[in-house]
Amino acid sequence: MATFHDERSVWNFSAGPAVMPQVVLERAAAELPNWNNTGMSVMELSHRSPEFESILASAESDLRKLLNIPSTYKILWMQGGATSQFSTLFYNLLGDPTKTADYLVTGGWSEKAMQEAARLGAKVNAVVNTKSTGHNGAVPPPSEYKFTPAAESAYVYYCDNETVHGVEFPSFPEGVPEGVPVVCDMSSNILSRKFDVTKYGIIFAGAQKNIGPAGVTVVIIREDLIGTRMHPNLKCPVMLDFKVCADNGSMYNTPPTYGIYMAGLVFKWLLEIGGVDAIESINAQKSGRLYDAIDSSNGFYRCPVQKGFRSRMNITFRIFKNGAASKDLEADFLKGAEKLGMVQLKGHRSVGGIRASLYNAMSQKGVDALITYMQDFARQHSE
Amino acid sequence: MATFHDERSVWNFSAGPAVMPQVVLERAAAELPNWNNTGMSVMELSHRSPEFESILASAESDLRKLLNIPSTYKILWMQGGATSQFSTLFYNLLGDPTKTADYLVTGGWSEKAMQEAARLGAKVNAVVNTKSTGHNGAVPPPSEYKFTPAAESAYVYYCDNETVHGVEFPSFPEGVPEGVPVVCDMSSNILSRKFDVTKYGIIFAGAQKNIGPAGVTVVIIREDLIGTRMHPNLKCPVMLDFKVCADNGSMYNTPPTYGIYMAGLVFKWLLEIGGVDAIESINAQKSGRLYDAIDSSNGFYRCPVQKGFRSRMNITFRIFKNGAASKDLEADFLKGAEKLGMVQLKGHRSVGGIRASLYNAMSQKGVDALITYMQDFARQHSE
Repeated sequence: MATFHDERSVWNFSAGPAVMPQVVLERAAAELPNWNNTGMSVMELSHRSPEFESILASAESDLRKLLNIPSTYKILWMQGGATSQFSTLFYNLLGDPTKTADYLVTGGWSEKAMQEAARLGAKVNAVVNTKSTGHNGAVPPPSEYKFTPAAESAYVYYCDNETVHGVEFPSFPEGVPEGVPVVCDMSSNILSRKFDVTKYGIIFAGAQKNIGPAGVTVVIIREDLIGTRMHPNLKCPVMLDFKVCADNGSMYNTPPTYGIYMAGLVFKWLLEIGGVDAIESINAQKSGRLYDAIDSSNGFYRCPVQKGFRSRMNITFRIFKNGAASKDLEADFLKGAEKLGMVQLKGHRSVGGIRASLYNAMSQKGVDALITYMQDFARQHSE
Repeated sequence: MATFHDERSVWNFSAGPAVMPQVVLERAAAELPNWNNTGMSVMELSHRSPEFESILASAESDLRKLLNIPSTYKILWMQGGATSQFSTLFYNLLGDPTKTADYLVTGGWSEKAMQEAARLGAKVNAVVNTKSTGHNGAVPPPSEYKFTPAAESAYVYYCDNETVHGVEFPSFPEGVPEGVPVVCDMSSNILSRKFDVTKYGIIFAGAQKNIGPAGVTVVIIREDLIGTRMHPNLKCPVMLDFKVCADNGSMYNTPPTYGIYMAGLVFKWLLEIGGVDAIESINAQKSGRLYDAIDSSNGFYRCPVQKGFRSRMNITFRIFKNGAASKDLEADFLKGAEKLGMVQLKGHRSVGGIRASLYNAMSQKGVDALITYMQDFARQHSE
């Protein structure tokens, strides 16, 4: 089922829930009422049935292949999205509550993560914080990062790709003190490029961008961090406890079975098109071409994010007129795009403008269609 | 789409995730790749899109119709199943932590709920506890319930239907002290019979029995309980906070959109077949006939649950030989049933035996097929 969705009637640039591979949707539709000749939908299978257990096992082993996850890491299937993980870290990693939780704040999501840890009672430190520049990707050089010394540090947290602001780390942050576990929110760029799992203590991702439907959170966690650093005074709600989840094979209670099945189909699709290597190069081309179109528009389109930290997944831009962003032009742009079947391009309500999300399932053809439209629109509306 | 699934090749008696209406599955399959001519799957719609907002609004208004929910109650869509609610109650209802949380313990799930509240730090009281009799439905009369006096009581909790043990309250428990909010876990019998919402403070239900796929939890909560009784000392994890969920229309973060859509289809189906009135009478017939078959088998089949508290949703029974339950006969029974397309009949691993779950989507024809098989099997294996 190794193709993109080039025969669809719309190009869906949503930031999430987002476009899924057409072939995955077609397969899901075909087997929805009767999976694998069981006479039942996947939705109707007991999570304890051998059928569902095989679905879970395949999804896990395919994810391990795709990301080269060593056996010293467990894969957990949780619920509640990244936001639930923000709280979960507090209970599971502050075994010494006098220690500091370090956050690299480069956008709205890492900011929320730090706020939640602080609200629950953690001592937090912003290693770096780009809030004052509107999270525009002007991340200071690593020499200016203010990490807490290892002996006093509970963990280092960062968000690899900030979906709202379109800010993405080009690579693993430099200067993390040795021995401190790194926690990373990869909700919106997991599986989009290669990375070295062994550099991380915990990687988590809400599914609804590059994995599958909303309602599933994938957690990749180094085994030595499971249940060994529980907060000594504050009990962890049972569904936020990594150890409970791990000890019960992600089935302490009923997991979101259908979402896990869909994730498994997406993993198979990705393996068939060549894995993360292949998609990484496709993604680089897609975002590269779109940023080129923005940068070569003579200031008609402007990406607020500085080069070096521009996201390959969420490309944000404004449309300028007379030296300022024009909401009217942006509204016209969105309307015209919609007429051509290019949808969900509106920027996040907190930042405005346009946002084109180019997740794995967005094909090069879709990006080319957007670029052509952008060029036409600029020609028509430039002074 | 008002029919049962009488044309399917299997009868699925799973306790959950469970059988869904055939017509709902067929419609979901048909519109999976392209919902309502949007060119997109429901899974691909932004939760902030007008399209998804219309899906959410319909699901909510249909649920209000079905259960006659007054406007003084909010409907929340949460994640993490009933188990997450066990913790959620602690943070949201123990505004005075010196107060006691009262639990009626009539099966495995209410037991777990009480344990979680106690573990988090609540003072708990078992109003009644049938653990010593193996949760066999021998619930003492209301005169023996030991409620905490209203002035010292935070809430009264019960589980309306115990899925594992097959124990169901025949009606609202008597003797609850006036003014104390009643919290009820209706995960496995919501929408199966009429009840008076206004008697409750909070009703919650994991979706995977009578509502839709796993991964969605419906919470029906009286407005005055939202955010007004937060634990004064212990911060509530943000995703467990009813007020955060309510203030953001269940979209503080991305909700499980596809599960909500499926729930909406199930609600529409239920309205079309005549609502809760109609299904209540069908359910009474289904379970009535099956219990009759058990009780009239001369002791070959025996239901461990006492009359008066027998579940209409989960009918548990053992197969007897020489005066004792026979695991061999039970294994033969399950094997033979499977050959006839009657699946997922195995009892919960903690209690063994057989369990036939007769949720709303299980048709009378399916129950009749099971009864016929039971009679044949008894004839063949009776001494």
